[in-house]
Amino acid sequence: MKIIIVGGVAGGMSAATRLRRLMEEAEITVFEKGPYVSFANCGLPYFVSGEIDSREKLVVQTPEDLANRFRLDVRPHHEVLDIDPVQHQITVQSNGQSFTETYDKLILSPGAKPFTPPIKGIEEAKNAFSLRSIPDLDNIMHTLNEQANHAVVIGAGFIGLEMAENLKKRGLTVTLVEKAPHVLPPLDEEMAAFVKNELINNGIDVITGQSATEFRKEGRELVLEDGTILSSDVTILSVGVQPENSLALKADIKTGLRGGILVDEHYQTSQPDIYAVGDAIVVRQQITEEDALISLASPANRQGRQVADVIAGLPRKNKGSIGTAIVRTFNLSAASTGISERTARLAELPIEVVHVTGKDHAGYYPQATEIVLKLIFDKYSGKIYGAQGIGEKGVDKRIDILATAIKGDLTVFDLPELEFTYAPPFGSAKDPVNMLGYAAINLLEGISHHIQWHELKEALTKGKILLDVRTPDELKQGTFPNAINIPVNELRQRLNELDRSQEYIVSCHSGLRSYIAERILKQSGFSATNLDGAFMLYHTVRPEELNYV
Amino acid sequence: MKIIIVGGVAGGMSAATRLRRLMEEAEITVFEKGPYVSFANCGLPYFVSGEIDSREKLVVQTPEDLANRFRLDVRPHHEVLDIDPVQHQITVQSNGQSFTETYDKLILSPGAKPFTPPIKGIEEAKNAFSLRSIPDLDNIMHTLNEQANHAVVIGAGFIGLEMAENLKKRGLTVTLVEKAPHVLPPLDEEMAAFVKNELINNGIDVITGQSATEFRKEGRELVLEDGTILSSDVTILSVGVQPENSLALKADIKTGLRGGILVDEHYQTSQPDIYAVGDAIVVRQQITEEDALISLASPANRQGRQVADVIAGLPRKNKGSIGTAIVRTFNLSAASTGISERTARLAELPIEVVHVTGKDHAGYYPQATEIVLKLIFDKYSGKIYGAQGIGEKGVDKRIDILATAIKGDLTVFDLPELEFTYAPPFGSAKDPVNMLGYAAINLLEGISHHIQWHELKEALTKGKILLDVRTPDELKQGTFPNAINIPVNELRQRLNELDRSQEYIVSCHSGLRSYIAERILKQSGFSATNLDGAFMLYHTVRPEELNYV
Repeated sequence: MKIIIVGGVAGGMSAATRLRRLMEEAEITVFEKGPYVSFANCGLPYFVSGEIDSREKLVVQTPEDLANRFRLDVRPHHEVLDIDPVQHQITVQSNGQSFTETYDKLILSPGAKPFTPPIKGIEEAKNAFSLRSIPDLDNIMHTLNEQANHAVVIGAGFIGLEMAENLKKRGLTVTLVEKAPHVLPPLDEEMAAFVKNELINNGIDVITGQSATEFRKEGRELVLEDGTILSSDVTILSVGVQPENSLALKADIKTGLRGGILVDEHYQTSQPDIYAVGDAIVVRQQITEEDALISLASPANRQGRQVADVIAGLPRKNKGSIGTAIVRTFNLSAASTGISERTARLAELPIEVVHVTGKDHAGYYPQATEIVLKLIFDKYSGKIYGAQGIGEKGVDKRIDILATAIKGDLTVFDLPELEFTYAPPFGSAKDPVNMLGYAAINLLEGISHHIQWHELKEALTKGKILLDVRTPDELKQGTFPNAINIPVNELRQRLNELDRSQEYIVSCHSGLRSYIAERILKQSGFSATNLDGAFMLYHTVRPEELNYV
Repeated sequence: MKIIIVGGVAGGMSAATRLRRLMEEAEITVFEKGPYVSFANCGLPYFVSGEIDSREKLVVQTPEDLANRFRLDVRPHHEVLDIDPVQHQITVQSNGQSFTETYDKLILSPGAKPFTPPIKGIEEAKNAFSLRSIPDLDNIMHTLNEQANHAVVIGAGFIGLEMAENLKKRGLTVTLVEKAPHVLPPLDEEMAAFVKNELINNGIDVITGQSATEFRKEGRELVLEDGTILSSDVTILSVGVQPENSLALKADIKTGLRGGILVDEHYQTSQPDIYAVGDAIVVRQQITEEDALISLASPANRQGRQVADVIAGLPRKNKGSIGTAIVRTFNLSAASTGISERTARLAELPIEVVHVTGKDHAGYYPQATEIVLKLIFDKYSGKIYGAQGIGEKGVDKRIDILATAIKGDLTVFDLPELEFTYAPPFGSAKDPVNMLGYAAINLLEGISHHIQWHELKEALTKGKILLDVRTPDELKQGTFPNAINIPVNELRQRLNELDRSQEYIVSCHSGLRSYIAERILKQSGFSATNLDGAFMLYHTVRPEELNYV
């Protein structure tokens, strides 16, 4: 059998090596447009700061390695220009020459390409780059090595944040511009606010709700919507990606959502014997059951292996993806799995959300750090739609656990049942993931009621009263306007200071003591609601509404 | 309602605080025999080295804290001597006085007590201690502060390992004695062998397969089975725990497995209105469905909270436990969840096991370290029975993920589908957990066959041939006797050196290349079997059978 693979990175190379392990006699050729195959595209930003210190480390396998071990014919610098699905033939161009090759099976793994925003003057901007490949990186490094002092990063998604950090660590001043109202749009606003603060605390200028409208002086100046002019020695364009579908379109392969290649559950496209995997295909979002484009390395690798299995006759199906991602920004990790609150609300799912603050490991053991977790779940069934996490350490673990819980169809009722590795250096007897479950069950069983940070202002306007149960000492960190303060430990003795005809919203630092206070109040005949995430969350996302001494 | 709780640590205190949140008007009293409640028993070993540097950190909450916040009547130094289940009355002793108290509901959370081995002379040994409580720790510290140079730790389970490490870090010489054939008996031998090496590399003397038979000179000398005499300035007894059931027995409460208190799924004992939780109760091992004693903080805390819910009328059931644990030994973490291979074989479950070596995060990103994972699963259905992990970093995460997978009834077929947070500092596009799934599926689908390290010797004796596919350079690390060496990259060209009438067992360093070689051989008409875990595992567990230059 003669198998041709177009694209030699995650999906394509996983397919090629698995095919060889299953089909020793097959003729397997990989055509890659660029100069490298099997390179570490997720590692590229870290080369900018020198954190990854050698270019060789970014090339995981060379064509020679792959020939030696897997007897693969891997050809970089070979661009597939056209496909003739009827003749089972492709046209390839390399080194100015073109030739044809026939195939029995063709696998497309073209990936996604950076979206280039249609900004005036962008074509003359010689210092503006996307980052997808090693040549892109080489171009960026070339510009950086020529005396670059100030960088502008347009787009504060995963790659934008990584580039902002690494450019800063390299010593540049960095301005980060994001069109959305907040950085890291895949996360919800209040969780992304922690990342924004971390960026600012590390000296990054962060501009949100603005896009670039014009490049001037060959890209040395950028104009934003509001007229702001930024100077730039190097500009990174990281405003998202789109499926690389040009070859598929030439072959009359059907595409769907935003041009993504449509495949069936066996990765078969609309053309016989042509398969597609990776960032270029439309997948099923397993939580919403809707079409989605998920540009992540993990699903791409899995799909590449699975399409090899399909071609080799093994029973394998694409079950879809949930989308799990993480980014490190200086000392902070920010991660998510499943869908965000915003996505869930747009889909009009009957959701409830809860925030829990905990430690990465036992508080009494040195160097414990705070983790904030958010859970998005069904207010009736407890089904988990998604989770997000922020913290210095251990965020990856918690989101991975929750991603596994989603794949296992666990509900919030199962989260307290999860038994984790616990010794003081690693965790707590009640892990924050367990606590998410307890908090969610309290809501579903009516033991606790809460409002979210974005609902507070309106509630107070309507006459509800904010009761802050922190200690007087803690109030020095900032206070809610017009709040009553009774420390939780004094609450039982001071209930006579409160009015049973009023409705109280209770806050503390993180939401734990306010929940205890809520329970005291409820059981004493008061109307009480917990402010989820409490002062800590509000202070992060809406500091301008609080009083600071 | 008048609720009395016996035991003020994990289970008891979780019950007390949850009860208060649910039943503001209940009268809740906690009697604790010792001087402290709610202390960090898992943290005690770390005080020995000073890693936890203040004694106060070990006391998480004081009776005053608990009175102020939860209006609990918490009484340390109060030992409950007797229960009259008919009269709903207990007898309590404190400060030499005894008194009675009545209850509507009684919760027993007495915990498990260290097993004291019946060694001759142990009663005269003034320097031999178990470690369960802060007074135990105080006694140990007192002895350590009086010029102690050499310590003996008897029992190499979780606490024994932690004590050995912390005594060593304090500057003592340490001998660790374990009766079982290997350290860390909850793990299987080959996984525990990594821990043994870590102990030895850090200067601990490790003696396995030996128990102490006599204490001499008031404990200054220990005699082992084989006549070895060890001198000891301080001896730690950590040979396991047993349910603290004396009070339950006095109340005619039924007990089961090794004296554990029997409870129904609502934590109700055989006596009306008496409940029990924590290390003292018999639970259902969720994997084997058999009775088990699981002395871990996480289930104890959950059970305490659940029994409070039951008493408050909320729908809650004890679903059992799977048992997840971790221990850090110097730079190495060792963790497990579910049941071990040994336990599974004793239960005659139809198991298969697989070992996978991977990195905690992307290999091209700095400071990646090796993780070895083991999966125990059903050879027909792929059901996961248990997992074990070893490594410097990220072992807790992988075992937590696998514990979640077990709770979610995921099978090995689901493991490749799991989507984890991936960015270079946190993981890999194909996480070792995904790889466990791929490896297991290869076995179940007959794509790969393997033998285990403990089966190699017999296989070679029966005439099978070991083919080592490492590079000549790697052979310097050690070799298998009588092995043929053909590096995997040369295998296709050198197949003529092999004999199709022979049966080959293929090994490399970790088992990945040997699997590739196995596939090449199988598809070329040879009989080939992969040595699971390969040289790396064999070298760790059976170095004496290998050749070293």
